[in-house]
Amino acid sequence: MADRPVKELNWKTPLEEAHKPSLNKIAETGICGIMDPISPGTPPGSDAATLALLGYDALKVYSGRGALEAVGSGIDVLPGDVCFRCNFATVDENLVVLDRRAGRISNEDASKLAESLQKIKLKKPLKVDFLFRSTLQHRGVLILRGAKLSTAVSDADPGKVGEKVQKVKPLNDSPEAKLTSQIVNELIHEFHKALKNHPLNKEKIKSGLPPANIVLFRGAGTIPQIQSLTKLYSLKAVCVSAAPLVGGVCKVAGMNLIRVKGATGLPQTNYLGKAEAAVKALNSYDFVLLHVKAPDVASHDGNVQQKIKVIEEIDKMVGYVLNNVDASSTYLAVTADHTTSLMTREHEGDPVPIAITGPYVRRDDVKEFNEKSCAKGGLNRIKGMDLMPILMNLLEKAKKFGA
Amino acid sequence: MADRPVKELNWKTPLEEAHKPSLNKIAETGICGIMDPISPGTPPGSDAATLALLGYDALKVYSGRGALEAVGSGIDVLPGDVCFRCNFATVDENLVVLDRRAGRISNEDASKLAESLQKIKLKKPLKVDFLFRSTLQHRGVLILRGAKLSTAVSDADPGKVGEKVQKVKPLNDSPEAKLTSQIVNELIHEFHKALKNHPLNKEKIKSGLPPANIVLFRGAGTIPQIQSLTKLYSLKAVCVSAAPLVGGVCKVAGMNLIRVKGATGLPQTNYLGKAEAAVKALNSYDFVLLHVKAPDVASHDGNVQQKIKVIEEIDKMVGYVLNNVDASSTYLAVTADHTTSLMTREHEGDPVPIAITGPYVRRDDVKEFNEKSCAKGGLNRIKGMDLMPILMNLLEKAKKFGA
Repeated sequence: MADRPVKELNWKTPLEEAHKPSLNKIAETGICGIMDPISPGTPPGSDAATLALLGYDALKVYSGRGALEAVGSGIDVLPGDVCFRCNFATVDENLVVLDRRAGRISNEDASKLAESLQKIKLKKPLKVDFLFRSTLQHRGVLILRGAKLSTAVSDADPGKVGEKVQKVKPLNDSPEAKLTSQIVNELIHEFHKALKNHPLNKEKIKSGLPPANIVLFRGAGTIPQIQSLTKLYSLKAVCVSAAPLVGGVCKVAGMNLIRVKGATGLPQTNYLGKAEAAVKALNSYDFVLLHVKAPDVASHDGNVQQKIKVIEEIDKMVGYVLNNVDASSTYLAVTADHTTSLMTREHEGDPVPIAITGPYVRRDDVKEFNEKSCAKGGLNRIKGMDLMPILMNLLEKAKKFGA
Repeated sequence: MADRPVKELNWKTPLEEAHKPSLNKIAETGICGIMDPISPGTPPGSDAATLALLGYDALKVYSGRGALEAVGSGIDVLPGDVCFRCNFATVDENLVVLDRRAGRISNEDASKLAESLQKIKLKKPLKVDFLFRSTLQHRGVLILRGAKLSTAVSDADPGKVGEKVQKVKPLNDSPEAKLTSQIVNELIHEFHKALKNHPLNKEKIKSGLPPANIVLFRGAGTIPQIQSLTKLYSLKAVCVSAAPLVGGVCKVAGMNLIRVKGATGLPQTNYLGKAEAAVKALNSYDFVLLHVKAPDVASHDGNVQQKIKVIEEIDKMVGYVLNNVDASSTYLAVTADHTTSLMTREHEGDPVPIAITGPYVRRDDVKEFNEKSCAKGGLNRIKGMDLMPILMNLLEKAKKFGA
């Protein structure tokens, strides 16, 4: 949601431009500030940023995106498993990437292809159990299990259209890294062979659509070793999000997940349904994380008007929450997990605005929720990992240090 | 002194409500900010917070309250000694706690009982030297010395009225922890036996008062391993405080202590006498810490009007200091070691206000000393352990880093 000043908005940010009475109400009745999700100037990934916002020291515990996305997709990831993020993509006969999203393949098509790939059997000496699942559109996850494996391997994904799929290499001299890179290279080869001949792709080519003829792997990781929020704060916590990655981080933190019908992780999503689910969840949980992926999507697409519209939808969602919770006992915090620039279309290391309202906050003079006004607020400048202790302190769940 | 907004003060804090021209003058002529004694959201104990305000990294060096309170009571604590905080309390015949403060026993009575308990001799194999002293009202300290001991033992104090005194257990498998727990259990038993039959308690029972018939031990700790302020900053430093705990931290930091007649550690204390002692001390010391426990006491009692009155007394005390020091060469800093909420009656993790005046500070626009106005000050948001380096920098006593 956070951004830099945008030229075509006369150097306002989308948050400054949007009509957002409910977000402003939280700022006006609350305490505001700016927050560096990881550290000043560091552009955060959503995975690391979400870990930080839940109170963990991401710089210490972060161990790759793959496992978090897999957990969020409902896969049980075990300690020792090595996980990768995957993209269905389109390559030519020389393995040069033509489309990193395989023409934004639908969830249904991706799921069918994934099912057929799961049936592939690897032969010795590379025999290992693997789980391959599609998640959202072209995205998926791969989990390797049942051998001594390593996360010290390079990416197959070249990250750019027009470049060749890269051979995965071990990043150290261990036999585990060597074995893991061999397995991944073999899977790329076998998946490519199977996808080229899959009827669904043959149909796509017939219709002039880009076939999903390869799976690109990247970001080898394991599950982070962290204590659950329940242990840390005696907290019953739940997450309402359509983004598998955010759901994964929450699950690893010991939170439950609520799926909302019509919640897509895209700008067209069920905003009100999510708000209703969040309010309802407050009956049985101490802490609800209500997450909307849409402003990030609009930013990555460089779509200024869509980002403003999405912020206005979020504002209505926040309005529903404001009108339906008990203001005498509930604290509401609004923030973003990072800045995404409409201009660069990338995550940026600028701080994000934060506002917290509730019965006993030290209300400040800030009246609007945006990047600039919140910088004048009573919280001053905090770090992402400070947010959870600050909220737990308000809920009387913070542990005293000293006696 | 710091607090959250209070409903019966129309959501002002006691600092906002109180008449305090001198504290405001420090804010107006100085540079202000907010300060997290330990870290954002962490409710600090007074011991850890005072260590932090003197510039130490409490999260690293804090080693329990017992030793600090003992040192502050004038006991020489040696490295290797294991210290406990103690309460005289009242229990029934089943060792269920009826009153954790033994009817707020007087200093005189507690001291008499402590003297008689000190005469008890432990028998082998639990023979060890112990020092037992009463400090303030029902509070006391116990030091174990002369054997291989451990701080890894549980508390005897159940922390609540209506619960049974707990058997002290070793918290690890070491022979030291086992021995220490046995000694403490034996002392509880022997103390209880002696107290039940003490004439002073028999009198109390006759007069319908709760007898101080047990001593509850908790918070096993050692003396923290820190360098003195003299070594760190070539500083001659002194503390004016009636609170044994604060005095103890200061002594461990290499500071001298000044006792002021009529200073009680309670809301009824010799405010002016303390101010006079502090001003006088500036003739022979570079740094004076003038500490008042009273606002914390008022907060723990949930006494709104008393807290306001205490702040106004402190303001007069600050006025005396302002009028009697050389403003051209003296820096004055005012702050609190933590927030204590009148509503919850507990220490909270909200930041505290800080204001520093003196000849070369970068004066800001803040005109009032309170939680909200100071948040707009030129210091922004600092940590407790930053304060001492900031002050030492103003005094030209900070060490350069790099060349």
